[in-house]
Amino acid sequence: MNKTLLDYSFPEELKKMNDRDLELLSYEIRDFLIEKVSKNGGHLASNLGVVELTIALHSVFDSPKDKLIWDVGHQSYVHKILTGRAGSFDGLRRFNGLSGFPKREESIHDMFDTGHSSNSISAAMGYAAARDLKGEDYSVVAVIGDGALTGGMAYEALNNAGSSHSRMIVILNDNEMSISKNIGGISQHLAKLRASHTYLDLKKQLKKTLKGIPGVGEGLYNSVEHIRDTVKYALSPGGIFEQLGFKYFGPVDGHNIHDLTEILSAAKLMDEPVLIHAITKKGKGYRNAENNPGKFHGIAAFDPTTGNLASVSEKPSYSSVFGKKLLQMADRDNRIVAVCAAMIEATGLGKFSQKYPQRIFDAGIAEAHAVTFAAGLAAGGYRPVVAIYSTFLQRAYDQILIDVCMQKLPVLFAIDRAGNVGSDGETHHGVFDLSYLSHMPNMTVLAPKDGKELEEMMEYAMTLPGPCAIRYPRGEAPEITPADGNVLEKQDVLEKQDDFFGSRSILTGQDVELFAVGKMVSVGTEVCELLRKRGIQAGLTNARFIKPIDTDSILAAAKQTGKLITLEDNVIEGGYGSSVTQVLAEKRMNAVKILNIGWPDRFVEQGSTEELCCKYGLDAESIAERVCDFLEGKA
Amino acid sequence: MNKTLLDYSFPEELKKMNDRDLELLSYEIRDFLIEKVSKNGGHLASNLGVVELTIALHSVFDSPKDKLIWDVGHQSYVHKILTGRAGSFDGLRRFNGLSGFPKREESIHDMFDTGHSSNSISAAMGYAAARDLKGEDYSVVAVIGDGALTGGMAYEALNNAGSSHSRMIVILNDNEMSISKNIGGISQHLAKLRASHTYLDLKKQLKKTLKGIPGVGEGLYNSVEHIRDTVKYALSPGGIFEQLGFKYFGPVDGHNIHDLTEILSAAKLMDEPVLIHAITKKGKGYRNAENNPGKFHGIAAFDPTTGNLASVSEKPSYSSVFGKKLLQMADRDNRIVAVCAAMIEATGLGKFSQKYPQRIFDAGIAEAHAVTFAAGLAAGGYRPVVAIYSTFLQRAYDQILIDVCMQKLPVLFAIDRAGNVGSDGETHHGVFDLSYLSHMPNMTVLAPKDGKELEEMMEYAMTLPGPCAIRYPRGEAPEITPADGNVLEKQDVLEKQDDFFGSRSILTGQDVELFAVGKMVSVGTEVCELLRKRGIQAGLTNARFIKPIDTDSILAAAKQTGKLITLEDNVIEGGYGSSVTQVLAEKRMNAVKILNIGWPDRFVEQGSTEELCCKYGLDAESIAERVCDFLEGKA
Repeated sequence: MNKTLLDYSFPEELKKMNDRDLELLSYEIRDFLIEKVSKNGGHLASNLGVVELTIALHSVFDSPKDKLIWDVGHQSYVHKILTGRAGSFDGLRRFNGLSGFPKREESIHDMFDTGHSSNSISAAMGYAAARDLKGEDYSVVAVIGDGALTGGMAYEALNNAGSSHSRMIVILNDNEMSISKNIGGISQHLAKLRASHTYLDLKKQLKKTLKGIPGVGEGLYNSVEHIRDTVKYALSPGGIFEQLGFKYFGPVDGHNIHDLTEILSAAKLMDEPVLIHAITKKGKGYRNAENNPGKFHGIAAFDPTTGNLASVSEKPSYSSVFGKKLLQMADRDNRIVAVCAAMIEATGLGKFSQKYPQRIFDAGIAEAHAVTFAAGLAAGGYRPVVAIYSTFLQRAYDQILIDVCMQKLPVLFAIDRAGNVGSDGETHHGVFDLSYLSHMPNMTVLAPKDGKELEEMMEYAMTLPGPCAIRYPRGEAPEITPADGNVLEKQDVLEKQDDFFGSRSILTGQDVELFAVGKMVSVGTEVCELLRKRGIQAGLTNARFIKPIDTDSILAAAKQTGKLITLEDNVIEGGYGSSVTQVLAEKRMNAVKILNIGWPDRFVEQGSTEELCCKYGLDAESIAERVCDFLEGKA
Repeated sequence: MNKTLLDYSFPEELKKMNDRDLELLSYEIRDFLIEKVSKNGGHLASNLGVVELTIALHSVFDSPKDKLIWDVGHQSYVHKILTGRAGSFDGLRRFNGLSGFPKREESIHDMFDTGHSSNSISAAMGYAAARDLKGEDYSVVAVIGDGALTGGMAYEALNNAGSSHSRMIVILNDNEMSISKNIGGISQHLAKLRASHTYLDLKKQLKKTLKGIPGVGEGLYNSVEHIRDTVKYALSPGGIFEQLGFKYFGPVDGHNIHDLTEILSAAKLMDEPVLIHAITKKGKGYRNAENNPGKFHGIAAFDPTTGNLASVSEKPSYSSVFGKKLLQMADRDNRIVAVCAAMIEATGLGKFSQKYPQRIFDAGIAEAHAVTFAAGLAAGGYRPVVAIYSTFLQRAYDQILIDVCMQKLPVLFAIDRAGNVGSDGETHHGVFDLSYLSHMPNMTVLAPKDGKELEEMMEYAMTLPGPCAIRYPRGEAPEITPADGNVLEKQDVLEKQDDFFGSRSILTGQDVELFAVGKMVSVGTEVCELLRKRGIQAGLTNARFIKPIDTDSILAAAKQTGKLITLEDNVIEGGYGSSVTQVLAEKRMNAVKILNIGWPDRFVEQGSTEELCCKYGLDAESIAERVCDFLEGKA
């Protein structure tokens, strides 16, 4: 059999395969995954962990009639391979290429676009309700990791589904990890369930019943009633899940295709909410990933033999600048504590957690709780720093507004991965934070242009009596930008708090003034250079303060040039540019023209940040062009 | 003893009272609550339910050293009485008066400002962590209802607290209800715990230990070690709470002060997370409220003898217009289903739920799950209508953005209580929705000026291929506004979808044009009248579409008058006015002056809507004044 994964007609062909064929297939898929992800980067460990589970799912269920819904979706690569998309893996996570997450537009087998955690059971329950209302007959299956189970939404849905007796299957993919080590009472509870031996009895019962039936899923229906009774009888005590109204099956070895297909076939027949507890190993079958599943959770291109990254940046990332600085500040100020949501390493807090294990709190994938917990810490006299990615902090909008801002509690939000994040695509771009934070009363919103400014802003934030958010992008933090050129920093050193407020002029120019936010300052210097070549003397200001906005600087520049451009790595609607426009209107600066440049009012796809900036007119060349058009009255 | 509640020195004096005194006190407090709330309106049933519990808490714990944190906070009236605020109850929920919720600015005994559900355990855990870091010694107690326990945040916190072994006490105030009947697997689980008889054993053990100790909380410490052992030994199996890492005490009769003080005294000594399951009755001790706790949850002024409302409006509320219309639409279109978050009656869906029990889904106090569940229903072919108050929908910001808007799913958000809501104050004003929805790609945002337009918009929303939000205020829906006068409706009847788009001119005028959103249209007509008296011919346009915005109408009016005013019942930042300003800037309408009127960038306090509008310049008189200043170049 010299077929490659591209030659199969999946998922149909799966149904004809026997256990041995399926096992061989699992080896092929693993090799394929390692090869493809090592080239493009992507989520590896989570996908290696669900190879057998996904094979079993597509063997037992009939996608797309049956609905398979993947929580977060970073474990959907095998599902993509088994639904006719193996040929597209060279474009994985690339511009115009295969998404790293389920996407309804990509395939009829993708039922719900995902990217954020803990929502699969809610979505599945919606599908199940729709099915029941229509009187249709299909299965709905949500696959959720034990990490995602620390998110409150998952519990809200379990609670609701369990009592409404929805016919649905939840597969708990228990690899004992979030992105980093899992935390919380629920994970300790899962450990107890894992240690229980009740599944052995269930398996014996199932074996006995299924014995002699040629193909699982085929002859199975012949003895439906018998199996139903047997299954019900054999159900093992399922702790919390049973208490919430689910029938609990497990624990089952998530790498044993035979066991999985048996248990899935049985669950398929039940007309109530069922939870299957499958034990898997993150990174399974690839030594490098098994040994370091955190590293191989989401990884850039790497050498498949050694597991080493293809290229390692010498420059520190914004995350590491943040982590290092916070550690220094914590050395001096024992009121400083850190709070994060299941991403200690990724947010740069690894060393902090080693040095101050008592002063860092991992809330789990539970952003809402993390924020209010921080509010409690602040009310109790501490200066908590909440480090969460921009896109995930969206989950705590209400808590930031009501529990932190309303009470003016001094919580510092360190918002990593703000702006466009590239290949993770639609669900992960952090381009809404300026909009959702700017209308919150009492909030201070800052964006640094480089690593040094991030450090200064962190110091500044600690002097504030109320909440503050500092948002910074993914990737390398230039130590100081612009590195050379006509630099005119108003102040380089923070002297006292009042002096720190406001924007800073970077370049002077009489024809037009660019107000740039965060990383757009460095883009702005390129723009100014391009404009100079065209004979346009453009000034550049580092905005720094998004809220409160520096009205004086804006008015001064407006009076001087009469033409303003705002540059931000955020949607235009409700963002920095919109605030600047508002200032001009309020101050009746009617002679002034303004052009707001930022991300458009749509969800931006995946691709490299460069490609996306190019497509949406946010690279230096395009911006320079737009500024010229603007000055000529064309735009 | 002819003391009134005002004469005591609470909470200190509580410690000197014996069981009989405390019981008598509970009667006094109940009478006081019924008297005061019957005059001012407020949350009655929830407070009647926690009289004994609050007395016991303040007897055993030393507030403010010990921290008492109330979930939602609508049950904190007794706490206010027992912390020196009985004398302020005539101003309850009034402008400049006593808040209906805990408020740190109001008293040193209020530890965390609340209003939204399910966050008390997170806040308490923050306090507990702060205490432990400082090496201080005090108790932290969160009181949370069983309804709030359907919110995912509560679970996130239980999960986190249970595993981190925080020394804290959670009191589950189990009255078997949210605002309406409680739902979910957890409530069924609680019912089982309630039915268990294990507390009897625990009580016997405690009794034996405590016997002969003169004053609870005093001599108790003499036998600390002994009690600790006893308590640990006597712990009853606590289901889900124990599985998450809590020690479970209960169930205990929440109206028995003696039992409560015993169990609280014991819990106080434990150095790990403890959950006390107290069974209470909503409305306890007041027949009218016991019989109809839903009605007496939050109630306007009423006759204490009969329980009848002091005044009943003849006009339908926006909620009831919505509910009635949705029912009609559901009769014709079986794709229409309703989703709400523990507030079927309050959102106007009572009759819908009676007629179509299969087509309405109550998610519990779980807005995030509710929204994604609706997204699943929409993906499954239905047209879900999610009815949630503006302020509570904040909890689902990320789910609206990512799970609904990103997938362009046709979910209709019926956003009730948008704008200023009056006496519920800071935490409840729905003045952020236009800001948090306007920057969401693919979203349509509408606001009706009256009941008829709400109905039309609901019809229109069903013709859209994607998500839509209709926001409408608390209170009466004028059938048609303006009821008379110089009305120039462009179109009265919806003919086809395209015709429906856009703003509508209500009054014409050459001097200035007012663009008003929703209920501000009717305020706008008053403003125009006032302006006419001053010789100013103001035009008035009903904005209707906040997103997409009606650029043509804005530009036409801008060209005609050169002066625009926007009026909205939302914060200015990121709201409708900000979008209109943006349109003018984009279109280079530099000659045009604009004034945005809306709520300021601060949290607005409680009071009647009239008082608050007056204070913040949003009543017709103030607006007319501001428009005059604007036209004279003063503002």
